[in-house]
Amino acid sequence: MSQPATSSREFEQLIERIARELLAAGAKPGSLSTGALCSCHGCCPTVCPDTLRCGFEAGADRIGIEKKLPPGAAHLAAQIDHTLLKPDATYAQVDELCEEAAQFGFATVCVNPLFVRRSARRLSGTRSRVCTVVGFPLGATFADVKAAEARRAIGDGATEVDMVVAIGALKSGDDAAVTRDIALVADACREGGAILKVILECCLLTDDEKARGARACVTGGADFVKTSTGFSTGGATAADVALLRRVVGPAMGVKAAGGIRDLAAAQAMQRAGADRIGASASVRIVREAAGEKPAAAPAAKGAAGGGYS
Amino acid sequence: MSQPATSSREFEQLIERIARELLAAGAKPGSLSTGALCSCHGCCPTVCPDTLRCGFEAGADRIGIEKKLPPGAAHLAAQIDHTLLKPDATYAQVDELCEEAAQFGFATVCVNPLFVRRSARRLSGTRSRVCTVVGFPLGATFADVKAAEARRAIGDGATEVDMVVAIGALKSGDDAAVTRDIALVADACREGGAILKVILECCLLTDDEKARGARACVTGGADFVKTSTGFSTGGATAADVALLRRVVGPAMGVKAAGGIRDLAAAQAMQRAGADRIGASASVRIVREAAGEKPAAAPAAKGAAGGGYS
Repeated sequence: MSQPATSSREFEQLIERIARELLAAGAKPGSLSTGALCSCHGCCPTVCPDTLRCGFEAGADRIGIEKKLPPGAAHLAAQIDHTLLKPDATYAQVDELCEEAAQFGFATVCVNPLFVRRSARRLSGTRSRVCTVVGFPLGATFADVKAAEARRAIGDGATEVDMVVAIGALKSGDDAAVTRDIALVADACREGGAILKVILECCLLTDDEKARGARACVTGGADFVKTSTGFSTGGATAADVALLRRVVGPAMGVKAAGGIRDLAAAQAMQRAGADRIGASASVRIVREAAGEKPAAAPAAKGAAGGGYS
Repeated sequence: MSQPATSSREFEQLIERIARELLAAGAKPGSLSTGALCSCHGCCPTVCPDTLRCGFEAGADRIGIEKKLPPGAAHLAAQIDHTLLKPDATYAQVDELCEEAAQFGFATVCVNPLFVRRSARRLSGTRSRVCTVVGFPLGATFADVKAAEARRAIGDGATEVDMVVAIGALKSGDDAAVTRDIALVADACREGGAILKVILECCLLTDDEKARGARACVTGGADFVKTSTGFSTGGATAADVALLRRVVGPAMGVKAAGGIRDLAAAQAMQRAGADRIGASASVRIVREAAGEKPAAAPAAKGAAGGGYS
């Protein structure tokens, strides 16, 4: 009796199993012949073994096998910071996050500073980078401590830094302090070649405060302005994204984050002017964009620690 | 017609009004004759002008007039960290917090690092000190950044530091990392003569994790173990306080914080073994302890920013 043809899904599972078994059997970085694996992206129906090879060469002990996504879904994935910031996140959960980022081609994993080094190691050889947070989520610490935290994180492998602005200073009308706060972290990021995103926490601000905060981001030298931490009383809204986009103009980035749990929400943010999305439900969002039937909305990964992004 | 006898409350209000009018009229530090004010504590029926004098001499531009409380209420007040950690707290709200701390004789004000210098200046000449938070509220940053934050805060006038432990490391079973995290901040506090309290965030932990965390506090050199940040899914419980007290023994401090909004809750924590209380509803709690009719339970001050302590 002939075997049925192997489906794409089975092929993918097979490659993944082989990789795991090789690793479990003690395969070491460089121990696979690269000649046995093609070196292109996009040559296979659902997975690209090149990612597997890169993972081995970089010394990762668990590897993400990048999925082949339809162009629209892949483009969306490349704009998402795949986020896990809850305080009780474990090493294993961070590893899973990295695995997903590599598989789906997310722009970054967004993790707490404690996990930057681990994430950078695991994502080595993939297209996903490491984003971290600074002065997070309250923003109410010293500017120089935020800058030191950014430097440490960049040294550990972060290429993107999301800082929280001094919200209380902004609400007290002390715009000079807000700009100084941003500028000090911007210096650290510039020195380290990292991108700086500045979180305003829009749900706590009036429209005037949001606009003043966004102007401070421009003056202070940020690369992006970001709506929310995901740990306060509300997340991104299309109205806030549009307001921030109006203030910062077309050249600067706008990141929408907090409460974005499905494709419709992500697309609404993009339409309003966001060019980066922060989400924990990233896998669900991209599966939806790829035309897969959406599962029931997941519990937010950030929720256990009081946040909900 | 003769005037009615001045009540204690009217006397207190009168002194407060005189002080404010003197300040509004441009009175400067040292401009009041100290001979016009007694120099003892406890000589007056409801307020002690000595605090007024100290405030002037220290250069405060707004002064707390310490209330004369019944011994039980005064003792309780001296065990409370009067807390305002919401991210959108303004300079004016911090000033009000300091005013209340001086009036009621709270152990400390507990404020974010950004407000330590301001609070220390305002509380100069009073019995209340400044407590701040480090790695707050997620605890998921670098140990050396937490230590640097503690050093900066101590330099600005903090005498107590509440750090959040690396919760994810604790949940991952990496007790050595947890102990190192605490020890590094403990070194900074010891050098600066400050007290270190370590927040475990009990609502996110199993009983085993709480016990391991408490043991790490002992080994790492903390002065207190503390139940909660007030920014997660739950606050202090009597059961957790009792558990922590059992693990750390009688010599170390136990601070209960998060969701303590009235006298009964504070007393329950004390009975369970807490010798320090963190609360935003501190004024209400102490007024209740002094036998005043309690007002309706206030909205938690920490709530606007997502926390509820």
